[in-house]
Amino acid sequence: MSKTVLLKATLDVGMPGPEHFEIVHTPVPAIGDGLLVELHAISADPYMRGQMRSTGGYKAGKPMAGFVSGKVLESKLPEWKVGDLFGGNLPYVSVQTVSVAQLKASPFRRLTELVSEKELGLGIGALGMPGATAYGGLIGILRPKAGDTIWVSGAAGAVGGMVGMIAKNVYGCTVIGSAGGPEKCSLVTQKFGFDHCIDYKTCSSTKDFIKAIRKVSPKGIDMYFENVGGMHFEAAMSCLRPNGRVAVCGAIAGYNDAKPTPEKIHITNLIYNLQRVEGFTCEPWLVGGRDDFLGDMAKWIKEGKLQVEETFFDGIESFGTAFQSLFVGGNTGKVVLRVGPEYGGGATPAAKL
Amino acid sequence: MSKTVLLKATLDVGMPGPEHFEIVHTPVPAIGDGLLVELHAISADPYMRGQMRSTGGYKAGKPMAGFVSGKVLESKLPEWKVGDLFGGNLPYVSVQTVSVAQLKASPFRRLTELVSEKELGLGIGALGMPGATAYGGLIGILRPKAGDTIWVSGAAGAVGGMVGMIAKNVYGCTVIGSAGGPEKCSLVTQKFGFDHCIDYKTCSSTKDFIKAIRKVSPKGIDMYFENVGGMHFEAAMSCLRPNGRVAVCGAIAGYNDAKPTPEKIHITNLIYNLQRVEGFTCEPWLVGGRDDFLGDMAKWIKEGKLQVEETFFDGIESFGTAFQSLFVGGNTGKVVLRVGPEYGGGATPAAKL
Repeated sequence: MSKTVLLKATLDVGMPGPEHFEIVHTPVPAIGDGLLVELHAISADPYMRGQMRSTGGYKAGKPMAGFVSGKVLESKLPEWKVGDLFGGNLPYVSVQTVSVAQLKASPFRRLTELVSEKELGLGIGALGMPGATAYGGLIGILRPKAGDTIWVSGAAGAVGGMVGMIAKNVYGCTVIGSAGGPEKCSLVTQKFGFDHCIDYKTCSSTKDFIKAIRKVSPKGIDMYFENVGGMHFEAAMSCLRPNGRVAVCGAIAGYNDAKPTPEKIHITNLIYNLQRVEGFTCEPWLVGGRDDFLGDMAKWIKEGKLQVEETFFDGIESFGTAFQSLFVGGNTGKVVLRVGPEYGGGATPAAKL
Repeated sequence: MSKTVLLKATLDVGMPGPEHFEIVHTPVPAIGDGLLVELHAISADPYMRGQMRSTGGYKAGKPMAGFVSGKVLESKLPEWKVGDLFGGNLPYVSVQTVSVAQLKASPFRRLTELVSEKELGLGIGALGMPGATAYGGLIGILRPKAGDTIWVSGAAGAVGGMVGMIAKNVYGCTVIGSAGGPEKCSLVTQKFGFDHCIDYKTCSSTKDFIKAIRKVSPKGIDMYFENVGGMHFEAAMSCLRPNGRVAVCGAIAGYNDAKPTPEKIHITNLIYNLQRVEGFTCEPWLVGGRDDFLGDMAKWIKEGKLQVEETFFDGIESFGTAFQSLFVGGNTGKVVLRVGPEYGGGATPAAKL
């Protein structure tokens, strides 16, 4: 049988958890005009929270969807062979068909030469959406120069860690991270090699945060990679030097609120300081439209400039728990839900008949 | 005698006016190593308000300074001849020496071939700082595409009017202006040729403003040129379409407040809408470092794509009144203080001896 993660009901306010999702079993479908694929890794990402609202893209009683990686089980297309590995954006259905129309519409990437079947988590991480987000935000939006100081919020998360490692190891920047709690801060400085990490749980106000930044970097910051929002943003703007750039990637602090609180900004300060605040998504880099995302990232992983950090949850039934971990600080690095045959997924011969 | 505008005392809060300035008379100085010049036009600009604060660049008992245009009276330099016209940034002293060091440090531009002596007001307007601000903000920061809709606040002012005319007549954009009162709005649509103009005095809240924008442009705006701040900014962000750009040039609404009120921004909205907010100053364009400011503007004036609007105040003694007009809506287009010999300035032969 194939297993599907359904959203029980939309959720405007509050913490998402296992109670909001349901697993349903359906027969494995016939192939159709394209591919039959088996998912090996399913992603839980902060942006999905907004899509769960009544105004969002997920609908009650319908499957969740997002970034996945997996293996081709059957193919009617010459460019895809049985056993090929891929990354893509699909419904969270453990075994499913992918039509030719779907292949054209969504960013389906071949991972066969880049990772082994056991490393398929990378397809939703460093070589997937979070990787393209870190890469595009840093290279395309912030445009680092050697000697710049960057602050990365959410530094223990999937995107933030990679931003800091690339900034430091590839561009020669001084890198400040922020994360919640001493364990995550240790990970950020010890494993990821950031120069400093601020425990935001020790900051109860924007002023505290500004003091903490000024303590490790008295001259302030040249770049800020925004994953959090709220007082993080306001502290960053206060510490931003002339010619400073802010890449807005996410604002997880407000994702569970009914009506998000706006951030405060003194736009006058932007003028003489020649500062820029810019929102972006990973898409241009993920689909290969700008720069060389897959090539550069695979190279930097191989060279050891980029350490991969993953938090695993096993079995498609754990989706709600994996998703909730994002909002309660339960993950470091990329959250990977392993759903391949060894974790109860896949198409058993009996089920296929 | 030469006349100097002195700042009596710094002013942190409140409306500037004639009572804050004093005119002192001093003998015309000897030439020194560079030039002796006579000012013909002196500029009153909104940015000068911030410089009057105790934290600003102007000091109590010292001369005011800013953008000027004028004529060379004597020269020790082969590249400048008697009678040459220029634009520059100098103290507000009707006849003064300009040393070789000063010529190197400040953006001194030759206007001899571009304007007549009677048109020297252009040297502090379309061919000066406001022109470079309009040109650079539109071309370098907002980067218009044909068919885009732009909203320009302060549309009856020196910079705003030019931004809208270039956007419409050179780039083929739909142009919405905002200004205070029906007379200014008429100027903006009738003389400057904007498609629409919103009287901001009819809007008592951000919501009113948003309604007014939506009424003339139901789909919102692609670009916003910010001269005002406060609810103007918040309304613009609310109407900004995907791929929208905001150029922050000024925020005059808060310039007279002790502690400016921050603007509110929902940074989450920037992300999926791929929006950018960027501050800038005119300098790179004014000094000729980016694009071709003087050449393009002179051409567009000649082709009639750019109508020049000026509000004149006469005699250096009127500086305080001219400056105050910026904050009480007393000007349309560029405020030009005429200070040449026919307005009581200049170096009389008797005074020179």
